[in-house]
Amino acid sequence: MTTSPILPPSGLPLSPTPRSTLRRMPERAAAEREALYAVLDAGFVGHLGFVVDGAPVVLPTLYGREGDAVYLHGSTGSASLRAASEGVPVCLTVTHVDALIYARSAFHHSMNYRSAVVHGAARRLVGEEALHGLRVLMDHVAPGSWDHARRPTPKEQAATAVLLLPLAEASVKSRTGGPHDDDEDVLADAAWAGVLPLEQRWGAPLPSADLPGGRPVPGHVTDRRAPGR
Amino acid sequence: MTTSPILPPSGLPLSPTPRSTLRRMPERAAAEREALYAVLDAGFVGHLGFVVDGAPVVLPTLYGREGDAVYLHGSTGSASLRAASEGVPVCLTVTHVDALIYARSAFHHSMNYRSAVVHGAARRLVGEEALHGLRVLMDHVAPGSWDHARRPTPKEQAATAVLLLPLAEASVKSRTGGPHDDDEDVLADAAWAGVLPLEQRWGAPLPSADLPGGRPVPGHVTDRRAPGR
Repeated sequence: MTTSPILPPSGLPLSPTPRSTLRRMPERAAAEREALYAVLDAGFVGHLGFVVDGAPVVLPTLYGREGDAVYLHGSTGSASLRAASEGVPVCLTVTHVDALIYARSAFHHSMNYRSAVVHGAARRLVGEEALHGLRVLMDHVAPGSWDHARRPTPKEQAATAVLLLPLAEASVKSRTGGPHDDDEDVLADAAWAGVLPLEQRWGAPLPSADLPGGRPVPGHVTDRRAPGR
Repeated sequence: MTTSPILPPSGLPLSPTPRSTLRRMPERAAAEREALYAVLDAGFVGHLGFVVDGAPVVLPTLYGREGDAVYLHGSTGSASLRAASEGVPVCLTVTHVDALIYARSAFHHSMNYRSAVVHGAARRLVGEEALHGLRVLMDHVAPGSWDHARRPTPKEQAATAVLLLPLAEASVKSRTGGPHDDDEDVLADAAWAGVLPLEQRWGAPLPSADLPGGRPVPGHVTDRRAPGR
């Protein structure tokens, strides 16, 4: 299958290591920082992997990006967050599934996607750094909410662990385009082939039942209903 | 935050272990086999974690479920698939993000989601078992394609590694409902609160450019355009 990067080459290359250098189908790798930013900024939920007693654990987590920093958060009482915040290696992967590829052969069925894999060690932040990380995370996940909603109290801040994962070692992969069937299968013309797009969109906001009637939905919520964000 | 399981309790409980017993917010855990099936069956892309040189690696992967077996596949030349198929511990996590929760406080912002975390060791299949696994995977990812498209040749089968991950140790978590603000924030009435649903749907099928004109899109493709599948 041929693939193309999701963005034209630009920006600085990411630091390649044996782990982040894709061994299979290197033409699918778009190890570009701008492409990495684009994949991370298009989502807000990643899958964080860490090792517990020699075995991998993968959990979904909200994240926010600013520059070459990714911020994660969780309860200070969370065992998984503790396991991921002690300077041990972690892996954060963000994936967008864009389409299913129907080919004339079962073998060439595929999917169009964009994914980013970030390797590194997460550092627990405190004080102003932690508050800044929370703000970046909130601005990423729910733009406008930091200014609209009540900010965290010292007690709430103390209950929230904030981690910083640097974007130092990462890889980006994507697949775009249609099916790539064998010539014989195209000539045989025995099956349909094409792309079935998978789309994600925000639905209509549902005000909380305990909200006084008549309060309009604020712009930072209604503005999100453009496709993809 | 209060949560509720995505399905009423039913079916056999999954085998709990310290790793799969959720330490935080146990009320959010719905460790039920039926709930596990429901989360796995609602998607087709998971995040597979495995350990390479002591560090976690998390990669997106297609999967198919049948009974208490999850099937994975990949190129036999893939280093990551080899790393995950040698009986070593792996973790497969499937997550559906259903909504973003806007609360009156930044602290109580949250998301509605369903996720399944499967721990185990994957076994590489050969021969008829591998072919069966491929069929299950295809029926799960692209229902109807196994019968419509050309089936794998022996050469294609030889190039495809098929893994079986048993559903023996797993946990399911979900959050549903609206925001859960502090009473003081509800009384203060200083911010909007509510649910912003995130919806996924199939778009219109795009026939391959090299397909002869006039061939209709087959029913197994057009039938998918109901929400959520």
